[in-house]
Amino acid sequence: MRIAIDAMGGDYAPDEIIAGAIESFEKLDKDDKIILLGPEALVKDKVGSKNLKKYSSVLEIIDAPEVIGMDESPIEAIRQKKHSSISIMARLSADGLADAVISAGNTGACVAACQLRMRNIEGVNRPGIAVVFPTFEGPVTMCDVGANISCKPINYYQYAVMASMYSKHVLGIANPRVGLMSIGEEENKGSDVIKKARELLKSDKNMNYIGNIEGRDIFKGKCDVAVSDGFVGNVVLKLTEGLVDGLFKIIKHELMQESLLLAMKFKPVMMRLFQKYDYHEYGGAPLLGVNGTAVICHGSSKVRTIRNAVMMSKKFHGQKINDKIREYLATTTVRGTDE
Amino acid sequence: MRIAIDAMGGDYAPDEIIAGAIESFEKLDKDDKIILLGPEALVKDKVGSKNLKKYSSVLEIIDAPEVIGMDESPIEAIRQKKHSSISIMARLSADGLADAVISAGNTGACVAACQLRMRNIEGVNRPGIAVVFPTFEGPVTMCDVGANISCKPINYYQYAVMASMYSKHVLGIANPRVGLMSIGEEENKGSDVIKKARELLKSDKNMNYIGNIEGRDIFKGKCDVAVSDGFVGNVVLKLTEGLVDGLFKIIKHELMQESLLLAMKFKPVMMRLFQKYDYHEYGGAPLLGVNGTAVICHGSSKVRTIRNAVMMSKKFHGQKINDKIREYLATTTVRGTDE
Repeated sequence: MRIAIDAMGGDYAPDEIIAGAIESFEKLDKDDKIILLGPEALVKDKVGSKNLKKYSSVLEIIDAPEVIGMDESPIEAIRQKKHSSISIMARLSADGLADAVISAGNTGACVAACQLRMRNIEGVNRPGIAVVFPTFEGPVTMCDVGANISCKPINYYQYAVMASMYSKHVLGIANPRVGLMSIGEEENKGSDVIKKARELLKSDKNMNYIGNIEGRDIFKGKCDVAVSDGFVGNVVLKLTEGLVDGLFKIIKHELMQESLLLAMKFKPVMMRLFQKYDYHEYGGAPLLGVNGTAVICHGSSKVRTIRNAVMMSKKFHGQKINDKIREYLATTTVRGTDE
Repeated sequence: MRIAIDAMGGDYAPDEIIAGAIESFEKLDKDDKIILLGPEALVKDKVGSKNLKKYSSVLEIIDAPEVIGMDESPIEAIRQKKHSSISIMARLSADGLADAVISAGNTGACVAACQLRMRNIEGVNRPGIAVVFPTFEGPVTMCDVGANISCKPINYYQYAVMASMYSKHVLGIANPRVGLMSIGEEENKGSDVIKKARELLKSDKNMNYIGNIEGRDIFKGKCDVAVSDGFVGNVVLKLTEGLVDGLFKIIKHELMQESLLLAMKFKPVMMRLFQKYDYHEYGGAPLLGVNGTAVICHGSSKVRTIRNAVMMSKKFHGQKINDKIREYLATTTVRGTDE
């Protein structure tokens, strides 16, 4: 399996990305290859400083002289920077030269490049980004968190199908319970598009659809898959990040007020918590619905994230998730009414 | 000032509601009155068990024999139960017999009854519920969190106006910074309606509009007012509740694993945190934009929430927030384009 990694994407690129790629070497299978994309001289220089003789057959570097910045307008960047690591990465996948692609760069540009080059799986109207929230009750997969901000009913349904496949075959959850993000459990709650999405979800007897869920339910073990449009999902994702940070800041402050000793004793517990429930553990978010394995990592990705993203992409590819999605959508009788 | 309280609303009604009303007595001003609404015999019986002679002139009980359940369909309930505490409460305000109304009951029914009876302030197209998030960086007022799930651009603008008035005159924040909830800071991020709302907000030079905010910014002290539609706001509100609960559960579990002693030492710190950052402290959410002072409390309201809601309604009424909103909207040149 050939895994292409954008060496220039993310706040800590290229050092942390390259180090993460290298750390994954020892967990690769015999025929696996890692392709690093970035300005060749720079990447070679960074790689050259490590002792990699043992892995010389594993690593390939492909020159991508342009870099797309984190704040650039995605569509324009993709149009103008054809030699950027993100553009070349998506082309490698489209041309069958990479089995998986991984980037911690500009999310919008990654989504745009993958959609443009790799095209959608047959039967999928719009791809969606799926993020895994590690909760006390187990991992919850949410889709979409930002690829598609205004959804049609059929998009929600397909997100449910795709995220269920991911939850089942990558996370190992037998019969994932699917909830539709709304503002109340009652059937009459939510916008018109949500109500129509609910009808589609209900009509599929093969799906373990449990009904509407509310914001609080994500962390209460009520569902394994949470379906939303990309706007709501993105707010949920970023709010969660901000709130967890804010809460730990508050706890730290309050503990310091109480006693320095208590604060010090709490620190290792906090570190362990961060480790256990950190979404970096899941190694990034798959872009579900494109022809290929595309993993979008958080801008703050470090060594561990990239290493885990490599492992995740191997599992995604190995489990043939895309074939399963294609087959499911080919046999389902659920069709969108608003297309 | 006459404050009408729905004695039958909320998970802990009527006991906690009535006890909360009574606890507020000693903080009332000379001419203030509390009106309790509910089945007369029941409310009298609950009140009778307290020693209230000193306050006999403060309390009035008005019979409202019907009760709207927490899960009833709001519109139908309001239509059918004209003698419910929520319906009568809204009528009292509309008829000038109450200066403020407070309920911890069915939120949808409260909003519907207040909109129907009290009508909107001149210049306001749609009312919005404003919730205050207590954060480490100070209180953040978010509007709307559930009254209006699909907004037009002008609604966002008016929520910004109204929540700013609340932030300034009730919470005492001099020049509240207003952020528009979106999925990226860049101007080109968000749906079409969000982009149009942004243009309206930007065009008002009297507003301290700081641009788009993301989910994470609410807890980072970036703004004092966060504007969103009722769907996104409601998800934010409930997610925050669920995540805080979930996180404390995780921390507790982890501390117990570490050492029982450490867990015990952490408990009072946690209790103090809950007290400090609990939104019950803010006593409920004002329904901004209706002619009158309407406070909607959380379904889980207890004594403290109701007592604080009474204090908040006094401040809201005393500061003449509605007059300020009316005046602001009468002089602004910002007009909706999609109405």
